[in-house]
Amino acid sequence: MQYILKIDCPDQKGLVHNISGILFSFGLNIIENEEFVDHVNDHFFMRSEVVGKLNRAEVFNKLCSILPENAQIQLHEKKKKNIIVFATKEYHCIGDLLVRHHFGELKANIQAVISNHDYLKDFCEKFDLPFYHVSADGMDRKEHEQKVLGIVNQYNPEFLVLAKYMRILTPDFTNNFKNRIINIHHSFLPAFIGAKPYAQAFSRGVKLIGATAHFVNDNLDEGPIIIQDVIHTNHKNDASMMARSGRDVEKIVLSNALKLIFDDRVFVFNNKTIIFE
Amino acid sequence: MQYILKIDCPDQKGLVHNISGILFSFGLNIIENEEFVDHVNDHFFMRSEVVGKLNRAEVFNKLCSILPENAQIQLHEKKKKNIIVFATKEYHCIGDLLVRHHFGELKANIQAVISNHDYLKDFCEKFDLPFYHVSADGMDRKEHEQKVLGIVNQYNPEFLVLAKYMRILTPDFTNNFKNRIINIHHSFLPAFIGAKPYAQAFSRGVKLIGATAHFVNDNLDEGPIIIQDVIHTNHKNDASMMARSGRDVEKIVLSNALKLIFDDRVFVFNNKTIIFE
Amino acid sequence: MQYILKIDCPDQKGLVHNISGILFSFGLNIIENEEFVDHVNDHFFMRSEVVGKLNRAEVFNKLCSILPENAQIQLHEKKKKNIIVFATKEYHCIGDLLVRHHFGELKANIQAVISNHDYLKDFCEKFDLPFYHVSADGMDRKEHEQKVLGIVNQYNPEFLVLAKYMRILTPDFTNNFKNRIINIHHSFLPAFIGAKPYAQAFSRGVKLIGATAHFVNDNLDEGPIIIQDVIHTNHKNDASMMARSGRDVEKIVLSNALKLIFDDRVFVFNNKTIIFE
Amino acid sequence: MQYILKIDCPDQKGLVHNISGILFSFGLNIIENEEFVDHVNDHFFMRSEVVGKLNRAEVFNKLCSILPENAQIQLHEKKKKNIIVFATKEYHCIGDLLVRHHFGELKANIQAVISNHDYLKDFCEKFDLPFYHVSADGMDRKEHEQKVLGIVNQYNPEFLVLAKYMRILTPDFTNNFKNRIINIHHSFLPAFIGAKPYAQAFSRGVKLIGATAHFVNDNLDEGPIIIQDVIHTNHKNDASMMARSGRDVEKIVLSNALKLIFDDRVFVFNNKTIIFE
Repeated sequence: MQYILKIDCPDQKGLVHNISGILFSFGLNIIENEEFVDHVNDHFFMRSEVVGKLNRAEVFNKLCSILPENAQIQLHEKKKKNIIVFATKEYHCIGDLLVRHHFGELKANIQAVISNHDYLKDFCEKFDLPFYHVSADGMDRKEHEQKVLGIVNQYNPEFLVLAKYMRILTPDFTNNFKNRIINIHHSFLPAFIGAKPYAQAFSRGVKLIGATAHFVNDNLDEGPIIIQDVIHTNHKNDASMMARSGRDVEKIVLSNALKLIFDDRVFVFNNKTIIFE
Repeated sequence: MQYILKIDCPDQKGLVHNISGILFSFGLNIIENEEFVDHVNDHFFMRSEVVGKLNRAEVFNKLCSILPENAQIQLHEKKKKNIIVFATKEYHCIGDLLVRHHFGELKANIQAVISNHDYLKDFCEKFDLPFYHVSADGMDRKEHEQKVLGIVNQYNPEFLVLAKYMRILTPDFTNNFKNRIINIHHSFLPAFIGAKPYAQAFSRGVKLIGATAHFVNDNLDEGPIIIQDVIHTNHKNDASMMARSGRDVEKIVLSNALKLIFDDRVFVFNNKTIIFE
Repeated sequence: MQYILKIDCPDQKGLVHNISGILFSFGLNIIENEEFVDHVNDHFFMRSEVVGKLNRAEVFNKLCSILPENAQIQLHEKKKKNIIVFATKEYHCIGDLLVRHHFGELKANIQAVISNHDYLKDFCEKFDLPFYHVSADGMDRKEHEQKVLGIVNQYNPEFLVLAKYMRILTPDFTNNFKNRIINIHHSFLPAFIGAKPYAQAFSRGVKLIGATAHFVNDNLDEGPIIIQDVIHTNHKNDASMMARSGRDVEKIVLSNALKLIFDDRVFVFNNKTIIFE
Repeated sequence: MQYILKIDCPDQKGLVHNISGILFSFGLNIIENEEFVDHVNDHFFMRSEVVGKLNRAEVFNKLCSILPENAQIQLHEKKKKNIIVFATKEYHCIGDLLVRHHFGELKANIQAVISNHDYLKDFCEKFDLPFYHVSADGMDRKEHEQKVLGIVNQYNPEFLVLAKYMRILTPDFTNNFKNRIINIHHSFLPAFIGAKPYAQAFSRGVKLIGATAHFVNDNLDEGPIIIQDVIHTNHKNDASMMARSGRDVEKIVLSNALKLIFDDRVFVFNNKTIIFE
């Protein structure tokens, strides 16, 4: 059996020695191990992949006994995550995810797709996925989110993936899923926060367009950044051509971010990510 | 003899035919030619490199006779530009330029270096360049700029290159050199405008750091963008490490922007650049 | 109506003037125009997008009358190309193309998919595309190609797209489709020609892996290169991990190459491509 | 005091625990630590930066006592390396290194420059560096290398940096400096091995040009690769333009490789590099 151990806690001398000692004492074999110390905040991060047979509670308790009190410890079997995908009308991100999912590449089970439009219904159903069209017509934001939440709660997903979901989520909603909602924003944040980033980019005459995968928190487009990438552009491209060529960056950035998250390689600390690639 | 012709004017039918007809009628050989029509503003841009013997006034007048009245026409021999380089204390951009200049790669004559500190004096003098230390100590901004302008005016340069010149120039100064001052900003604009972009980038937890070469206009960091590039970064890099690895992007972006400008490949229109690479 | 004009011929003075004169004389409006002169071979290339009403034969004849005898001239309406996609078992390139096709982004009609395995049958049929499984079991190469050719000929496609088709095509086959077969090779050619490029790359310890879209000619992996791109890799990735992360480069490179080809932006000359992006 | 510990040895259970235990027992504080297990060869690599006061022999012996017999152990103070730079006529790589060196950025002391031409003499002497012009005129390869070796041996450098040194070194020479000679090759190896890579690249019509920093071993351009990077090119660039734009990649790739090496972040194993960035 293969397990992932993630620890973060205030730094102190001997942590690596003590933690690896416990793993060793249980006869576990470390096949991948990475640590990082944030020297600005004196905080320690460690991720181990171990192979062996273990009693989860026993190892956990032993780790607790040697770690600082406020240490964050995660220890679980390596396995696919359950997720729900949100989309609106754009097909490129969700199309990419559904193809990967269909062929077993995505390290996740897509339990359902939720959309505020029905445009992608036929497409999603080709892949035998439950598709929920939750129109926002005639509803206030709170009401709509309650309906969406009702569906989400049926599934108990570990992560929500906003694959170009073009609605702002309120803190009431996002607070239910701290560091568990991933969004793809179509600019290299913090440039061009908010609506119509390609129109903003065209208007400013930038020579790069980009995409940012980030966790969603209370403030629009201000959550911890996971991955960013850009492509070059030039005067020949108007806003809609930028949008078109930006799609490929968006979908690859989102997919790469998910790969890291589903592999338990991402820590969030102080609104930033620490990633053991 | 080799000439560069640059034209921009409102678009109309037959422009390419008519302009190339004039060049042809003077027996000039077009060795490189590029056009672009901005369909949002219906504006036409054309750059030609021609070889032959020509009477500049004659060709110019002929072109005027067939182009719209407000057409911008530049026709001049292909030759090195005269420039003055501004710096403060950082050596990477000016170091890169001085090495290229020394070996004849830069398509420009550096007439002088001006700095508000004397830190780079010895270095610049190794390359036999006049170095002007214009300290700003005890002066107001206006006074300092007047002193700098006095030196600049002795040389009559075509371009001013701000190779990490860490002072803001006032409109009073910049208005003398419209689209003739090039700055390198150490972020992918419009992200992280103003001071300490790397500190801002570190604090936001971005995964890309970048550099932007742009013309300087009245508003800080808001002039027409020429080139931008980025490199990836991660949680291991604090602000000073970002600054260090950003230096290489900065110097290459600046140098590439200058190459395009000194080759007369850059048009400015509506606060954006059109570049015929 | 929108037309594309592509011309290539030995260079001579006045070509741009004369060609644009003909377009002008027919009242056509040039909305995009690019030329290039290959000064090594003194060869001229031009691509124009024109809008207007035209008699194709008339314009063509007029162009012939002023161009060198061996000029290549293409003039046709701007429209979607008919293509057949070839695949084997890998899903990433064909999956990407089918999603784009489904949503009308691909500037082509996929007429059919041909594969030497049936692994992708269900997937392709989700998208209502004819899928031909032409097993090579118990056949020699010639026999298999004849069967494939039989199917292809029913459709009369303009291009064949090898989206990870893992069989070598003989000159007997490829000669039927000069510069009309596009392949995606999973390395930055000319490195790692032939089979198992990722295994070769891992064994050599390279720090970049790449993909190359190219036209197929008589010699394996030696046809004209259209686009190449790379991603960084490191010692943590074995051959299979390289293959996995290489997939995204492959599919984006292939899709970008097809975009250029279907937009009539690619010339082939002396086993190289000239591309007006 | 800051020390670097590098260990590589056959993998076995408990290595991290045991090694970190020794560091801990000597009261050393680990400020950076990375491990990697090559699961193909079952080989373990570890690099630690530790702070504290230590008796080098004591720690070394203790480590030996718990590690497999054939373990490679390096333990030394963190400090600048002594290097000799080799060049021929091209100035871009050596120019970049000399500027960094002058301002204290290079983590090395350049003890001398050796060249088979005198073209760069004046330039190097601006920076107050001993410059040895060892002409190869009228000498056979062995004789020339002996003369070069004589100079090198006066300095006892830790690394030799070939900053565009355009002569092939024989195994007789290179065997003296196993994994201590770094070369910059102007292509993305293994493409375009040997002379004139840009001419080869132009002739093949590639769309990427690149550079590779590698250790030099007995076989030309076949040593362990440290870093590679590429830039995009197109049909407009002939071989000499490729060479010109390739210079910037070359110099940055070389400089980045040296940064890693001088920081003791590079292991060589089975003709590949393991790099803890």
